[in-house]
Amino acid sequence: MKVAKQRSEELARLAALVRQMKVGMLTTVEPDGSLRSRPLETLEVDREGRLWFFTQAHSPKALEAEANGHQVSLSYADPRDEDFASISGTARVVRDADKIRALWSPRLERWFPKGLDDPDLALLEVRIDKAEYWDEPREENVKVSTL
Amino acid sequence: MKVAKQRSEELARLAALVRQMKVGMLTTVEPDGSLRSRPLETLEVDREGRLWFFTQAHSPKALEAEANGHQVSLSYADPRDEDFASISGTARVVRDADKIRALWSPRLERWFPKGLDDPDLALLEVRIDKAEYWDEPREENVKVSTL
Repeated sequence: MKVAKQRSEELARLAALVRQMKVGMLTTVEPDGSLRSRPLETLEVDREGRLWFFTQAHSPKALEAEANGHQVSLSYADPRDEDFASISGTARVVRDADKIRALWSPRLERWFPKGLDDPDLALLEVRIDKAEYWDEPREENVKVSTL
Repeated sequence: MKVAKQRSEELARLAALVRQMKVGMLTTVEPDGSLRSRPLETLEVDREGRLWFFTQAHSPKALEAEANGHQVSLSYADPRDEDFASISGTARVVRDADKIRALWSPRLERWFPKGLDDPDLALLEVRIDKAEYWDEPREENVKVSTL
C-alpha cells in the first residue's frame, strides 16, 4: 500500500493506522435508506489525503457510493490492538487508465479476475471530509482536521 | 460477552464472529447527511439476534442512532484473520434497569465512569435487519437471513 507524506501530524497518524489495518469497511446508504458495509482493501493514501480502492464501475457498491450526495464512511478496526479509525468522506468513481495501472497488482485478481482487461474496472476515490481515530490508550479520540 | 443460541446456522456463525471481534464500528447518519462511525463494545447477542451495547441516552451517538428511521450499520473487522461482518440494523435506546444491571461490569467504567449511578446510562439495542459475513476463504460472502 502506498502512503504519501501527509499535510499534518494527525493525517499522518491516520494514514499509518489505515496502512496497518489495510482493509476498511465502506458504508453506503442503500436506496431504501438502510446502511450497508463491505470490506475493501485500501491501495493508497495520497498527498491530498484521498483513499483509493478498486471497484467495478457498475457494481452496487459503486452506484451506492455515488448516491446519498456521494457521502460514505470508512471504518478501520484492529480489535486486538484496540486501534480504530473512522473516516467520513465523499466518494467518486474514477476511470483513469494510468492510475489504474499504477495501483494494479496481480494479487487483486482474487476479486477482479479479469484484471486490467476488465472494461468495468475502475477506482473508487474517497476524499476525507472528517476523520477520527482511537489509539490505545483511548481515553480520548483524536479528531483529524483535513484543512 | 453473552451469546444466546441463535435461530439459524448463519446467525450462529455471525454471532461467533461478533464474539471473536467484540468491538463493532457503529455507523449512523448525522444531521447533515454525512456518515459517522465509532467503536462500541458488544455486550450481548440475544436469542432474537439483537445486539446490545451501553450508551448515554443523550449522547450524539444515541441521538443519531435514533435519527434516519433508526437505521444504522455495524461493522466488525479482523484484518489479520480476514474475517469481516456487516450488519444493517434498526437501533433503539432502551432504559431497562434490570437489563442494565445484567450487562454491567466494572470494566465498563473506562467509558462510563459514573457506572450504574449515571442517570443517563442506557442501552443501545440493534435489531438485525440484514447481515453478511466474509469468512476466510472469502471467495463469496454469506448473506444472513433474519427470518
